[in-house]
Amino acid sequence: MIGRAVSGRLIGVGTGPGDPELLTLKAVRALSQADVVAHFAKRDANGNARAIVGGHMKPGVIELPLRYPVTTEIDKDDDAYKAQILAFYEESAASVAAHLEAGRTVAVLSEGDPLFYGSYMHLHVRLAHRFPTEVIPGVTAMSGCWSQTGEPIVQGDDVLTVLPGTMPEAELTRRLRDTDAAVIMKVGRNLPKIRRALAAAGKLGRAVYVERGTMANTAMARLAEKAGDNAPYFSIVLVAGWLGRPGSASASGAVL
Amino acid sequence: MIGRAVSGRLIGVGTGPGDPELLTLKAVRALSQADVVAHFAKRDANGNARAIVGGHMKPGVIELPLRYPVTTEIDKDDDAYKAQILAFYEESAASVAAHLEAGRTVAVLSEGDPLFYGSYMHLHVRLAHRFPTEVIPGVTAMSGCWSQTGEPIVQGDDVLTVLPGTMPEAELTRRLRDTDAAVIMKVGRNLPKIRRALAAAGKLGRAVYVERGTMANTAMARLAEKAGDNAPYFSIVLVAGWLGRPGSASASGAVL
Repeated sequence: MIGRAVSGRLIGVGTGPGDPELLTLKAVRALSQADVVAHFAKRDANGNARAIVGGHMKPGVIELPLRYPVTTEIDKDDDAYKAQILAFYEESAASVAAHLEAGRTVAVLSEGDPLFYGSYMHLHVRLAHRFPTEVIPGVTAMSGCWSQTGEPIVQGDDVLTVLPGTMPEAELTRRLRDTDAAVIMKVGRNLPKIRRALAAAGKLGRAVYVERGTMANTAMARLAEKAGDNAPYFSIVLVAGWLGRPGSASASGAVL
Repeated sequence: MIGRAVSGRLIGVGTGPGDPELLTLKAVRALSQADVVAHFAKRDANGNARAIVGGHMKPGVIELPLRYPVTTEIDKDDDAYKAQILAFYEESAASVAAHLEAGRTVAVLSEGDPLFYGSYMHLHVRLAHRFPTEVIPGVTAMSGCWSQTGEPIVQGDDVLTVLPGTMPEAELTRRLRDTDAAVIMKVGRNLPKIRRALAAAGKLGRAVYVERGTMANTAMARLAEKAGDNAPYFSIVLVAGWLGRPGSASASGAVL
């Protein structure tokens, strides 16, 4: 139709686990071309993703921070909370859609990989059927963590299970027993429960704790040796598989 | 000790799923500085990883192809096969070690992520305790695949299970029933069995098949609609979680 604006392009950009050098060439190119860069953030601070992409945005880019209405951990089964979050995602999608309708290319930052536990996907499911959309995968936080520890996570015919630390203890224990390797996400205040579940499953001795993996202020320890139960929400616990690997545990090249 | 050569550095470099733009900035920098670039390959062809890094190696780099002694699928429980493969890894490690002892930095290419089902780790466990070692994580093949299909794989408190398609059918079925989302690796000639297991677990309708994800000659289809049972060994089947997501399946933005 003559005079009708061509809509812009939505790009979900994985920014990797934290180290700015773990951006992909494709992410850098998308950022250098985007008219608008959107990112989810807490009310009072920009997120890690925004810090990671710092120097790669084009001059004059429109920044669109999408600020969560709540910053503390509330019971996520609370109905009022659920309604508030849902409204926030709808409003965020509408803000992004307005730029796309005006013909602008919008890059939405996503820590790690956009479709792997990322906030980006709340926009994706609302917009990808309406606008040309591309997802640029990123290095996940878990890959960043096991690369940093130097422990091979899975080999050969190993089964890997990725578990949220929010899961009930009995269920967590059962699933830890039933896998070769495991990654436990969303550790935070669930750490004491995670320790107990790992011990019950006979895997505490193999568990490694990593916080802020690949970032400048990262920390890691064998979980059995970690003092105290303080842990940021986005810390990760790894249980490596490949039990038949050559050499002793000390030959694994682990930094720990 | 005066006159003693300082040993070189071992770097496991994740080259991502196939699209050369999915290399990280860190991988590109490591490749531009490495004295030796090693890669696992079949006897008669270089691997995908070598193709991906094409233009990034420094002039005069020493290339060290590590060629598998066997190229066809043999029973991997066969003792002669096991001995042959073990000897190959020992010889490969010795070749790399010779360069490291001579003070050269050796980058070992690994498709996807080095410590996630990668051949690199056979060198890592033999060398990382003897030489300064760094692992540069990469975008996994599975991230490349789900980004290409546009289907969010996991959200919120979903459990993700990564399964080898080589697993016995009953075990595969049981594990597929017991997870929110699944990635099935090593599809190849296991495809008919994988179809049956997914059907028995009630998840065939959600399964998506991807071969050569993010590469120029990629192909994908809903598994229930894929004609025939031909599949390359490194094809992948995805079962997306996040069943409570907003909108219908057609609103997921899937390219399919």
